[in-house]
Amino acid sequence: MALDFETIREAVERRMGEVIDACVSPANLRDAVRYAALSGGKRLRPALAWACCEAVGAEGARSATAGAAVELVHAFSLVHDDLPALDDDDLRRGRATLHIHAGEAMAILAGDSLLTLAFQAIRREPDQDAGVTLRLLDELAPSTQAMIAGQILDTLGGFEPTDGDAAGRGEAVHRQKTGALIRAACRMGAIAGECDETQLGHVTRYAEAMGLMFQIVDDLIAATGEPEHVGKRTGKDDAAGTLPFPGVLGIEGARAEAERALADALSAAEALGPNAAALADLARSMAHRTS
Amino acid sequence: MALDFETIREAVERRMGEVIDACVSPANLRDAVRYAALSGGKRLRPALAWACCEAVGAEGARSATAGAAVELVHAFSLVHDDLPALDDDDLRRGRATLHIHAGEAMAILAGDSLLTLAFQAIRREPDQDAGVTLRLLDELAPSTQAMIAGQILDTLGGFEPTDGDAAGRGEAVHRQKTGALIRAACRMGAIAGECDETQLGHVTRYAEAMGLMFQIVDDLIAATGEPEHVGKRTGKDDAAGTLPFPGVLGIEGARAEAERALADALSAAEALGPNAAALADLARSMAHRTS
Repeated sequence: MALDFETIREAVERRMGEVIDACVSPANLRDAVRYAALSGGKRLRPALAWACCEAVGAEGARSATAGAAVELVHAFSLVHDDLPALDDDDLRRGRATLHIHAGEAMAILAGDSLLTLAFQAIRREPDQDAGVTLRLLDELAPSTQAMIAGQILDTLGGFEPTDGDAAGRGEAVHRQKTGALIRAACRMGAIAGECDETQLGHVTRYAEAMGLMFQIVDDLIAATGEPEHVGKRTGKDDAAGTLPFPGVLGIEGARAEAERALADALSAAEALGPNAAALADLARSMAHRTS
Repeated sequence: MALDFETIREAVERRMGEVIDACVSPANLRDAVRYAALSGGKRLRPALAWACCEAVGAEGARSATAGAAVELVHAFSLVHDDLPALDDDDLRRGRATLHIHAGEAMAILAGDSLLTLAFQAIRREPDQDAGVTLRLLDELAPSTQAMIAGQILDTLGGFEPTDGDAAGRGEAVHRQKTGALIRAACRMGAIAGECDETQLGHVTRYAEAMGLMFQIVDDLIAATGEPEHVGKRTGKDDAAGTLPFPGVLGIEGARAEAERALADALSAAEALGPNAAALADLARSMAHRTS
């Protein structure tokens, strides 16, 4: 059965709103946190968590808390990455970024609050087994560290010799900055669905292929001048030469690499069986998106 | 038996170093995180955790991981509070603050890493019961939110009418910005020692009295011109009128309030029985410190 994105968004945003209202004060901080967390967005990571939860044979709704936690980490990272000392972005999804909207001090502290909230969100599932909660924690925290490491490499450098040339470095940035949280979203959805280890292996292979494909397609959209994400300033990344995948592999090479990642994701979905049809759909739409 | 602060410091800093080395990369980020976390400091919060763990009848060393987690949150808060957009401090403990030492982008991201590390630290106690780990998480995350809320109130305002006048507002700032993490340190030490609910109640009363006393004595040191903390720039808080406790209660009134808090802490320690002698000692030395 196809995923109902509206149901997923509604369930995950309700969870996010509940944990914000229960845990964040005073009102000015809560408003800033809500501004950053509940301002739209595709909710791709919660949709992946939901589909992975279904793929291992559970109700997708059981992943909503895990999806909310991942999305809170994602929101934290956007707020801090947009700060003047980092990417210095004024616009996100067509709206002022939080530091423009509410000031830099508020943006720093609201990011801190969002990150802390993610660890509170995983505790708010009343019937969740203690072992499942701890496994969610074990996915959430290291993937957050990986994101921070990816942003360090992207902004300040610090590559190891083993990261190799420009292509290897670009891939290292992407794998940590974007791939780690996509991987965590998928694995957390499967864990919330109480998967077995074989299923978790397939979900992990799917997630890693999806993370790679996500970045290649982003690079291709930027390099070929296809429409950028709505509201994002255009023209910042428009030189293919600075993009890891098309810059190194060429446009056709990058397209071929994306096709290989799609095939990998589809093969992992197939191994998960009939409940993973939505995962296969998500992979195809990820491969062919134009924005 | 008196607390051996050297043993506590060594055990807690070893735990902090282990979790940093295991979880943080690349090397430039790891160096920044180590600079912020392992640059000295009194380790008051881990000492409180240790003494509370002993007070409930367990080996103090069982609190070392909880103490490390609390100290990582404390280190995170110092790094972000020192940033130019917040308190804009150049010096801490006689050394350059992290954003002066390593740049603002690194300081923002290293603070994020330290906060995430705290939630990884509580998972690194091999023999810890799952229920204990989850209770530690339930102390750590809300006390972190409270600290962030306290910094918001202190920096940006946002008081509720129920916070009352200047004294009430000063107390609200202190209770969240400093008191909440002291309370969490004490309770986490007791929880790591597998306390019962009666013991946890006494520990909580002790902790709340200590948090209050900590702030009053800080204010008195600033107001009376006694030596400030080593390495901290002096003269920023030297007007008693801007300090919540001496400004509202007067110097003698604030001293009397500190004495009342000491009596409260000592009575809670007494209720915990003979293993709480170190807690009583800590309360007396907190009340009479001059720096």
